[in-house]
Amino acid sequence: MTELSARRALFIVDGRLQASIPVSDRGLAYGDGLFETARFKKRYLPAWRLHLQRLMRGAEVLGLDIDASLVERNLDLALDFAEEHQIRDGIVKLIVTRGDGGQGYIPLEKSVPRVVMTVREYQPLQLVRPESGDAGSVELVSCRYKLSHNPALAGLKHLNRLEHVLAARSASLNVGQQGLVFDKDDRPVETLHHNLFLIEGSSLVTSDLSLCGVAGVLRRAILEHFAPAIGLSVKVEHLSSDDLVAANEVFICNGVHGVTPVTRWQECRWQEGHLTRKLMQCISERWNCFYDG
Amino acid sequence: MTELSARRALFIVDGRLQASIPVSDRGLAYGDGLFETARFKKRYLPAWRLHLQRLMRGAEVLGLDIDASLVERNLDLALDFAEEHQIRDGIVKLIVTRGDGGQGYIPLEKSVPRVVMTVREYQPLQLVRPESGDAGSVELVSCRYKLSHNPALAGLKHLNRLEHVLAARSASLNVGQQGLVFDKDDRPVETLHHNLFLIEGSSLVTSDLSLCGVAGVLRRAILEHFAPAIGLSVKVEHLSSDDLVAANEVFICNGVHGVTPVTRWQECRWQEGHLTRKLMQCISERWNCFYDG
Repeated sequence: MTELSARRALFIVDGRLQASIPVSDRGLAYGDGLFETARFKKRYLPAWRLHLQRLMRGAEVLGLDIDASLVERNLDLALDFAEEHQIRDGIVKLIVTRGDGGQGYIPLEKSVPRVVMTVREYQPLQLVRPESGDAGSVELVSCRYKLSHNPALAGLKHLNRLEHVLAARSASLNVGQQGLVFDKDDRPVETLHHNLFLIEGSSLVTSDLSLCGVAGVLRRAILEHFAPAIGLSVKVEHLSSDDLVAANEVFICNGVHGVTPVTRWQECRWQEGHLTRKLMQCISERWNCFYDG
Repeated sequence: MTELSARRALFIVDGRLQASIPVSDRGLAYGDGLFETARFKKRYLPAWRLHLQRLMRGAEVLGLDIDASLVERNLDLALDFAEEHQIRDGIVKLIVTRGDGGQGYIPLEKSVPRVVMTVREYQPLQLVRPESGDAGSVELVSCRYKLSHNPALAGLKHLNRLEHVLAARSASLNVGQQGLVFDKDDRPVETLHHNLFLIEGSSLVTSDLSLCGVAGVLRRAILEHFAPAIGLSVKVEHLSSDDLVAANEVFICNGVHGVTPVTRWQECRWQEGHLTRKLMQCISERWNCFYDG
């Protein structure tokens, strides 16, 4: 267990337990690659298919020749290591870069992607727990840095994340707070690490991510499966701050922490609403209590 | 000389001859860092001060706590290694990342930057050499991928370079050709690895890089020193394709290869003009024939 205790994480590079990558990797040089961050419990990853689909869609945009079965084999290996090190509730972060080579920005015609896995223990989201005894929620704090528009890369989980780092640096966040990120036209897009959903009547609304933002796997599962399953209609559109103010319920979600109610942003206060709770129950039932406890 | 011959490059990480960085580095995870690519001959780097200034300006935008004297010491070390390995005309690439740590995109308050140097032999630019016996020139080929606008990061040499990789992949380049990159509004911005200059009468015009592109060190030196020295007035503005078509002379430049005349783009043909040549001579005189031969 030395590797785990020393670094609090296990690193696997191209199938080998190894904590470093070559300086010449294009992931370092240019952010030329993609990543996924998935939660697992024992060997159960309910959203894995969605992670893999997003990865492969990103690979198509970047022209990365990723072999899905190789990724699967690396995941299996990561889960083996997790078992060996008794990580039962963990996070696996997968990075696939374009590997080495090329002439500056111009990649080799036949590059060999590098697969990097990081495995660590799950850490729960820090929540605000109001006296009411609710399950817990978060508050949103606006980031001052605004995302630019980039239709070609929007939605993808690529390695060019400086804008999110700058957004993170532009908010000062306390325990239980998440940074709300806006685009250059002042439209709320997402939080630093989650997608944003509003409930208006019996409609579930989330931001259109065709210009910026990251399209999360749980966002997709909610839009395609969980919301319809509880009778909510879904809308994907560019949101305004007014939409946020007017919402009956607000929540954020990601594949690691599931759905988390939002109870505060600036002057706004929301209850942990019953539709959000119904959605959480639906996810819990279909995904074997994955996000519970 | 083993390291050099095996990898055709020397790698130095935080002052140590080492070819790898930790998987946990934020440069890999998020492109959270900056780089510079400088040419040297023996220990002579005429543009080093400009490289360092751009690096420090980038560090300010990213909130990276870079110690300039540490960078200098790493450069000295890189030049020592270059001497030992008999690299007399070489390229040193400097990457400074935010190092490790943080909570996802949120960096540590006090992060410790990682300094990575790569030293390799200089490789001349591949030129078109027309029958006229001119020194050589390049042709431009338009990249189909258009740069998005990002005022906060424009001009900086940060590690989020996926757009340039996509631009590179969107052009098919032969020997002697450089990819001309446009912005989303179809304005010519730069080539993949150079800045773009037009000569109109006795004016030198280059593209405004406040929305996208990389502000090269030689571009700056030309605007501030070399162009005035030969009596050219300078203009920085958003260019159009019509400006390019109407130009009397066109050249590209970067700190590694100096000034290179452009003789062709689509239907346009230009001569290696006398003002471009005069500028090249001026640089040669002031910088001790740095780019000659």
